Amino acid sequence: MQDKMLAEIITIGDEILIGQIVDTNSAWLAVELNKAGINVKQITSVSDDETHILQAFADAETRAEIIIVTGGLGPTKDDITKKTMYKYFGATSWKTDEASLKIIEQIFAKYNAPLLPSNFQQAAIPNNCEVLVNNLGTAPGMWFNKNGKIFVSLPGVPYEMMNLVENTVIPKIINQFELPFIIHRTILTAGVGESFLAEKIEHIENQLPSHIKLAYLPRLGQVRLRLSSMGTNQAQLQAEINNFVIKITNAIPNNWIATEDIPLEKVILDLMAKNNLTLSVAESCTGGAISQIITQHAGCSKVFMGGGIVYSNALKTKLLDVSPEILAKFGAVSEQTVTQMVAGALTNFKTDYAIAVSGIAGPDGAQPDKPVGTVWVAVANAQKTVTQKFTFGTKRPQNIERSVINALNLLYQLLKNSTN
Amino acid sequence: MQDKMLAEIITIGDEILIGQIVDTNSAWLAVELNKAGINVKQITSVSDDETHILQAFADAETRAEIIIVTGGLGPTKDDITKKTMYKYFGATSWKTDEASLKIIEQIFAKYNAPLLPSNFQQAAIPNNCEVLVNNLGTAPGMWFNKNGKIFVSLPGVPYEMMNLVENTVIPKIINQFELPFIIHRTILTAGVGESFLAEKIEHIENQLPSHIKLAYLPRLGQVRLRLSSMGTNQAQLQAEINNFVIKITNAIPNNWIATEDIPLEKVILDLMAKNNLTLSVAESCTGGAISQIITQHAGCSKVFMGGGIVYSNALKTKLLDVSPEILAKFGAVSEQTVTQMVAGALTNFKTDYAIAVSGIAGPDGAQPDKPVGTVWVAVANAQKTVTQKFTFGTKRPQNIERSVINALNLLYQLLKNSTN
Repeated sequence: MQDKMLAEIITIGDEILIGQIVDTNSAWLAVELNKAGINVKQITSVSDDETHILQAFADAETRAEIIIVTGGLGPTKDDITKKTMYKYFGATSWKTDEASLKIIEQIFAKYNAPLLPSNFQQAAIPNNCEVLVNNLGTAPGMWFNKNGKIFVSLPGVPYEMMNLVENTVIPKIINQFELPFIIHRTILTAGVGESFLAEKIEHIENQLPSHIKLAYLPRLGQVRLRLSSMGTNQAQLQAEINNFVIKITNAIPNNWIATEDIPLEKVILDLMAKNNLTLSVAESCTGGAISQIITQHAGCSKVFMGGGIVYSNALKTKLLDVSPEILAKFGAVSEQTVTQMVAGALTNFKTDYAIAVSGIAGPDGAQPDKPVGTVWVAVANAQKTVTQKFTFGTKRPQNIERSVINALNLLYQLLKNSTN
Repeated sequence: MQDKMLAEIITIGDEILIGQIVDTNSAWLAVELNKAGINVKQITSVSDDETHILQAFADAETRAEIIIVTGGLGPTKDDITKKTMYKYFGATSWKTDEASLKIIEQIFAKYNAPLLPSNFQQAAIPNNCEVLVNNLGTAPGMWFNKNGKIFVSLPGVPYEMMNLVENTVIPKIINQFELPFIIHRTILTAGVGESFLAEKIEHIENQLPSHIKLAYLPRLGQVRLRLSSMGTNQAQLQAEINNFVIKITNAIPNNWIATEDIPLEKVILDLMAKNNLTLSVAESCTGGAISQIITQHAGCSKVFMGGGIVYSNALKTKLLDVSPEILAKFGAVSEQTVTQMVAGALTNFKTDYAIAVSGIAGPDGAQPDKPVGTVWVAVANAQKTVTQKFTFGTKRPQNIERSVINALNLLYQLLKNSTN
């Protein structure tokens, strides 16, 4: 068995380098590779430029055993990955992959689109690669073995890439290499900062053996603590890490929320499902962001009934019975309004719990006594309503994101105090 | 003036390499650097490992004039960027930056938290760097000049990084270097594929001079065409690119939506605002994702009134007057139901236009005649209702995303046919 199998991810395409798209493929790939026991050493984004791609391939080969390359396989002129690989791996001719050609023909037939010469060319691959048939798109994947170093070329379209990785690439790697185990355990905390946590667990951190690493991952009001290790004896590693997870959570009894890498809203959904509780929302400044984050999760419909996006005051009154007098007197961003909103959600949407948020996300809308970033949150069940005012910053996206996280944290605290 | 100023972005931290976070910082940085006339040559993510970081610095120096480094500046043991820079740039001592120390003290005073030794250390910087004072957090930025190569170290927390870049780093770069202009123009298309577009505009693509590049950027039912160029004569470049934008849009009259890099929902918001039209939504399987995408945009409240997240059938009836008989007979995912949903939204939420979506996002919920990925969309105004059935795939996130984009595209088509 190899002690440590290293991979490198190379994304090809100017769109990442000019910031037109965010590279979500690499994060997903990293998770899948890790699960299979492969460490990602480096992620590199390079432009659609032959010299630069060739250099990146050569550099990657010195650092990793497996190099996963995404992007640049489209039918158009700016897509040069295939030609560049042809050159790098010293291919001597092109061959047409019949299975891929069939899929291309089927896709065009399905959409009643004419099959163009550039599409035929997508089925052509260098003669010294193994094809990875892409059932979901027109660009086949390719697998090159250069003196034991594996290069895998995949399309950049996320669902095509994901399908190939799950069903073809990972099984093929596992089949060819005997891999070590990588274990990551994450402790989710909320409401306190990195340095507070660091002081509380310093004595435990000092006991960690050199093969276990601890990382602090902060993000807007949440810090995740991640323990990582790798080895060949899975049961022993697991036990060792479990032991440290227990020590750490004991040191921060009021701040940890979960001992797995799970988002806060999923912790809430699981807790509510276990207790047969239902949830609705009344969202003003978060504009659907709370619902959206909840409904990402399969099976959420057991808990989440829905709610109102009440951007206008008219809809606050229509859907949530917020009184026009309250709106006129205290304004839409006030404790009085969110209190009525959350009560309206409980009553009208008939749920056990509700969240209401009203604030000034910005950049416009500031009032003399209410700067941009002022946000009121209310969470409630039939017995109890909790409200809290937040004063965030001036950036709209961050104000929305922080409102969502703090509203969820407030709901979690109420749930924790009300359930078992 | 330099002909071409190249930058490289290096992110430090294991969390990107294990896929725990998506690297959104780099995309944002790339946009800002581009605006300032700086090309990003490569984006590299490396681990919290000294040898690896030192190698990445040395490699970047051979390719770029400006190297922006983010992350690894926290107060905890896994944050080693500062120590590694001390070594790389041959510093001889640490100095305490008084301005940064003051900010750290203020932050801890504001949150009533005790100031810990690890926080004091955050104000210490290598003696041969210029400090970039971080007003929003405890980790100061650093600016090193190594024989004319600029290295900038920034915190990884997005809003702290963004604030430093906008207010300190970019102005400082512009002040020190005379930079060329980079021009990007994007044409947004929807409803047709890459190869269809490529055939339609091949004759124009063949006319492009070598200093203008065309890229195809596909994403779930949309393709953006991006023209890029760089030079010193801004007016001439602008005119040349404009000319090609006109040629391309003329070649695809029914497929282009906008000639700027603007998301589809912003095109809709602008068109509706111009025509004094209002919008509401009735979202089932998209679960708030349409509202969320719309309310990202400042000023959307002029057009967007809100709507109902009707995950449960009870809320479909309560908020949108969908008849229980229709739900029982045809099911929640049916043309009849979305037609009633969109009518209910128009009436109850009192808007000129409405969108309704009901589908099976998956992975559960499939029925014999309705596989996972079956989605019905309706868009309507007082005169006209348009419905369409989509059959997407098996992945929940993609089904939601494609539902959102196709619903917006359907709304855009209805708007285009109904307004000027």
